Amino acid sequence: MFFASDNWAGASDRVMAALSSANDGFAPAYGDDDISRRVVTRFSEIFEREVAVFFVATGSSANSLALAISAKPGGAVFCHDEAHVAVDECGCPEFMTGGSKLVRIQGANGKITPDGLTKAMSAFAEGFVHNGRPQAVTITQSTEIGTVYEFDEIAAIKRVADTRSLPLHMDGARFANALVSLGVTPAEMTWKAGVDLLSFGGTKNGCWCAEAVVVFDKDKAGELAWLRKRAGQLFSKSRFIAAQFEGYLADDHWLDLARHSNAMAQKLADAVEASDNAWLPARPQANETFIVVKKNRIEAMREAGAAFYEWPADGQAPDQALNSEEELIRLVTSFRTSEADIENFVALL
Amino acid sequence: MFFASDNWAGASDRVMAALSSANDGFAPAYGDDDISRRVVTRFSEIFEREVAVFFVATGSSANSLALAISAKPGGAVFCHDEAHVAVDECGCPEFMTGGSKLVRIQGANGKITPDGLTKAMSAFAEGFVHNGRPQAVTITQSTEIGTVYEFDEIAAIKRVADTRSLPLHMDGARFANALVSLGVTPAEMTWKAGVDLLSFGGTKNGCWCAEAVVVFDKDKAGELAWLRKRAGQLFSKSRFIAAQFEGYLADDHWLDLARHSNAMAQKLADAVEASDNAWLPARPQANETFIVVKKNRIEAMREAGAAFYEWPADGQAPDQALNSEEELIRLVTSFRTSEADIENFVALL
Amino acid sequence: MFFASDNWAGASDRVMAALSSANDGFAPAYGDDDISRRVVTRFSEIFEREVAVFFVATGSSANSLALAISAKPGGAVFCHDEAHVAVDECGCPEFMTGGSKLVRIQGANGKITPDGLTKAMSAFAEGFVHNGRPQAVTITQSTEIGTVYEFDEIAAIKRVADTRSLPLHMDGARFANALVSLGVTPAEMTWKAGVDLLSFGGTKNGCWCAEAVVVFDKDKAGELAWLRKRAGQLFSKSRFIAAQFEGYLADDHWLDLARHSNAMAQKLADAVEASDNAWLPARPQANETFIVVKKNRIEAMREAGAAFYEWPADGQAPDQALNSEEELIRLVTSFRTSEADIENFVALL
Amino acid sequence: MFFASDNWAGASDRVMAALSSANDGFAPAYGDDDISRRVVTRFSEIFEREVAVFFVATGSSANSLALAISAKPGGAVFCHDEAHVAVDECGCPEFMTGGSKLVRIQGANGKITPDGLTKAMSAFAEGFVHNGRPQAVTITQSTEIGTVYEFDEIAAIKRVADTRSLPLHMDGARFANALVSLGVTPAEMTWKAGVDLLSFGGTKNGCWCAEAVVVFDKDKAGELAWLRKRAGQLFSKSRFIAAQFEGYLADDHWLDLARHSNAMAQKLADAVEASDNAWLPARPQANETFIVVKKNRIEAMREAGAAFYEWPADGQAPDQALNSEEELIRLVTSFRTSEADIENFVALL
Repeated sequence: MFFASDNWAGASDRVMAALSSANDGFAPAYGDDDISRRVVTRFSEIFEREVAVFFVATGSSANSLALAISAKPGGAVFCHDEAHVAVDECGCPEFMTGGSKLVRIQGANGKITPDGLTKAMSAFAEGFVHNGRPQAVTITQSTEIGTVYEFDEIAAIKRVADTRSLPLHMDGARFANALVSLGVTPAEMTWKAGVDLLSFGGTKNGCWCAEAVVVFDKDKAGELAWLRKRAGQLFSKSRFIAAQFEGYLADDHWLDLARHSNAMAQKLADAVEASDNAWLPARPQANETFIVVKKNRIEAMREAGAAFYEWPADGQAPDQALNSEEELIRLVTSFRTSEADIENFVALL
Repeated sequence: MFFASDNWAGASDRVMAALSSANDGFAPAYGDDDISRRVVTRFSEIFEREVAVFFVATGSSANSLALAISAKPGGAVFCHDEAHVAVDECGCPEFMTGGSKLVRIQGANGKITPDGLTKAMSAFAEGFVHNGRPQAVTITQSTEIGTVYEFDEIAAIKRVADTRSLPLHMDGARFANALVSLGVTPAEMTWKAGVDLLSFGGTKNGCWCAEAVVVFDKDKAGELAWLRKRAGQLFSKSRFIAAQFEGYLADDHWLDLARHSNAMAQKLADAVEASDNAWLPARPQANETFIVVKKNRIEAMREAGAAFYEWPADGQAPDQALNSEEELIRLVTSFRTSEADIENFVALL
Repeated sequence: MFFASDNWAGASDRVMAALSSANDGFAPAYGDDDISRRVVTRFSEIFEREVAVFFVATGSSANSLALAISAKPGGAVFCHDEAHVAVDECGCPEFMTGGSKLVRIQGANGKITPDGLTKAMSAFAEGFVHNGRPQAVTITQSTEIGTVYEFDEIAAIKRVADTRSLPLHMDGARFANALVSLGVTPAEMTWKAGVDLLSFGGTKNGCWCAEAVVVFDKDKAGELAWLRKRAGQLFSKSRFIAAQFEGYLADDHWLDLARHSNAMAQKLADAVEASDNAWLPARPQANETFIVVKKNRIEAMREAGAAFYEWPADGQAPDQALNSEEELIRLVTSFRTSEADIENFVALL
Repeated sequence: MFFASDNWAGASDRVMAALSSANDGFAPAYGDDDISRRVVTRFSEIFEREVAVFFVATGSSANSLALAISAKPGGAVFCHDEAHVAVDECGCPEFMTGGSKLVRIQGANGKITPDGLTKAMSAFAEGFVHNGRPQAVTITQSTEIGTVYEFDEIAAIKRVADTRSLPLHMDGARFANALVSLGVTPAEMTWKAGVDLLSFGGTKNGCWCAEAVVVFDKDKAGELAWLRKRAGQLFSKSRFIAAQFEGYLADDHWLDLARHSNAMAQKLADAVEASDNAWLPARPQANETFIVVKKNRIEAMREAGAAFYEWPADGQAPDQALNSEEELIRLVTSFRTSEADIENFVALL
């Protein structure tokens, strides 16, 4: 009953097998090997255009380096108030950008809106050196509360970003979960909607450490190769990151993993809705489910072996407010979550 | 015949097996798992004292974060003129320290000397804000040219460092190769000689990505946990770095791998000494062998499949100077180098 | 009719005279001169304790360097939503701290409250590396909207800061204006209320470039001497900053200047209250007056020679909302503002 | 007898008068005033082309910000081994550039040579991310040991810089002293010889704090306006920096001041040559004179009121080596140095 995070789940068997089979003799270091080249080609196929791909090892570094491309003195990056870059990366984005600001925008359902973005951007008068200036916009897909931006929502945000020529970055730590939830293509969920830069996450969905910064217009990768090296994120045995992606992306394995995670979230939501001892502020759209439980049950649930985090209720804007004896908790399902895990958990409520 | 670098060799079978066997169900993220705990204990055993261990994924980040512990405004880190931190890390140490200077000290055989260090330190007048100030000393073991610091050499450097209260860092990207070359214990090669901080490298010697910053006085780890996270170097599925180390450090596997690499270097040196078409400026002490070849053979050797780098001859201070038709090349042997590789290579000379 | 900012006013005659008289022959550079020593003593007298004083030349650098003392990886500085450090310094604080976050807290009347601070701090779980961690609290006195923190308000904020051992910094760009408004002593407005670090501003109140970071506990100046030099803020002819302060602080000249500025603000407020064409959301407490005017008068007022800025109304929380034909403008009075300036301006409304 | 540095001399009377006369009523802040505009025009006249000018307050910040224009990840700035940026600015250039390296090049007479630069640049393989990459070249005019680069020397350095498309920066802390020494025009000593960026120093030659970054191709100022603000170097009452320059640059005042300083150096050199108790490694070319004195006289000279610094003899490469009873000292003359100062000093030898 491990719902603390999808990063507790280890790696899928296919990914591990790909990793092992990559360990075949010598290969050039630092990405100049055959597997890396094949995977870059695979990314271009998946996204239906020639893209630039930069492997890194953690989601924080993928996000931070992607934002560092557009770094400038006085730069401001716009994100949702609960964005991972703002609240869970220990200042890595600020550090990698040389001190850019993250401007946090509140918005219902874990999403920023065109209006919220417009207002936040308006605080930076054009050319007024004191304010600093807009640098980029970043959204998370699926969001930190398990919701998903629709194509039109992304496109609308991009239109606002365009008014100040800002690149749009997508933190895709749970990219696959959003993709199968929406039932669209990777291209539709990204560059066709206006996304310029993507942190493509493999780790949470079945790799052990495989993240990539994908730049849709290859000419706009800027200093990324140098930024990555300077950040200590260029791997000598880079073929093993590539190998994980090769296993992950073959035969729709990545989509299968995400479909399972999402299905488990739905099953969990169904069970909670049927329960008298917990309730659901909103249906999950990907693999994160937030539920309201009785505070006095939490300790017992943990003692029975359930792992999860309590979560600040602010951001959820639930229709019904929590009462003082209730607590919001976050449950993340993964490719490894079983139906039995869910049944056992629900029995504890 | 791949002698370009030991990082072309992939991972050892035992390390890969350990990695696979770690993929067993769920485990807490970010190092809070059983394997990680066991490996930290193992490090303490190996070094004969309780140490603090911070896993990271690349040698550049291990070195840079180790030096960032002592970072201060105007800080200066003293290193050899050819040190990896100074010439091969794209400014990662400068970046991670917030702008510290690397002061490069020339010295024969790839080593800094107490006199060289004393002179370099004397350029920083005590308390004189304009100069900046000494921050740390770093040495590489084995060095960038395949030599090895003896215990007394390290201790003498530490005595100089102590005059300004500077921590002594060891870049141990090839720690095991030096260790088996000297035939001393890990404790003797480090803290007993005065080393305060170690970048313990596993990657070049048979792991795929396993590096650790080892802090010998646990109370002096400073901000390292936060520095690592801010640098994007804290892995969610950190158990898989630990697992590599577990396989690597079990049953003296790491020492066996290094012994093989070093033995191959000796064999290579023997063959070169016996050759009329190449010569050896100095005997290798670890797993890097520098040899002088005829320039007009290089292209043919590469066409025949040999991989290696040409190297600036300056640092080698060879007894005999190279003539204009000669070139110095670097040959790195690894756990995967076979006797056949060496015989085939020597045949190309 | 120059109300754009108090920094349009030039320097007071006494300050200029002090500057000229300091130009008497040779003097040691970098603050090691007699005038600098006298002024440091004078600061200690004014604050009724031995303080450490670091001269710098701009308010942004004073604030940023003061905050850099407590910089740490993942550090977060808490400030009001409209704080100068957050919205008017082009990321100088983020840069000087190596990437700290400014966490903006909304609060009525331009002030943060203990509750707002407590809530903002609670987002940083103790020891949880992902969130980063609290580093410092900063308040502006007088505030960006011309209000003034009372002794008890400061003390209450300090008590909250103490729960996480955070230093309390005061941005005193308009320190004197607040001081004479409250009628307290410099000690009471600072360390007696819990302030640890002060940006003591002279520039806006009649110096041409004289700012100082004052550290109340001399042992907590940390790396400030080095931080200042590294920031390019250590002046060779530092005696001329000291000289400005000497003239400024002699014979209560600084208080006289501030009293005049504040009195002009009161006069302006009186006139606006008496006017049918403008209204006052709140009485000024220092030398900044915010008034609501008719939008269609603004262009004509400027053509008639009035200089001022339009201001976002959000932060003012006026009792009466602005209607769509109204605009909020900021009027800053200075030591050089005359009664005639005010009469002429009011006539334009 | 103050020869410690030209920055002990205070400001010239004309500069102080200009400062006072600028204090006339209100003026827009941050450089948007009439005096600032006039001075920018004056710079363009002096340099015979339309230049971009950015006022700052210290030489360290002028140099560091000028180099920050070309900052890039892994960037390396080439300078002389004794360059002020490398040894006297407490890491300000490294900090302002986000961690660029200063690569120090040895060279006789305080100057880098085309060969030295070529060799240093060759350590950075084109496109090889590990090495980092060349970013800029900086020279000091007059140099740290009082010599002066000739036109042809500068042009030859620029030709080498051009092979990697590097901007050439000149640290002109003693620009006027070099200019009158060479007897050329400002244009000839800068852009006509290949200089792209200049730190134009006024402070050491009679201003109290007036430095400017001059960008000869206005389109290549890059982010300098934002870099300056982010560094806390944009002055609100910027008119007072402009005013100093206005007085300084009027009627060849700046050249007169420099001519005097240089003449005093020549007089000093003459006297030393005539002395039995000291000798001159080389004739001064600007306003810094290095002389060799008897060690056992130094204390007495200081007690008699002479101020000067001892200097490491390495860089001087004197024809005659110092013996163990001798010491090299640096004597800097300024606009305020009198003939009597020199006579009194020489009498102490």
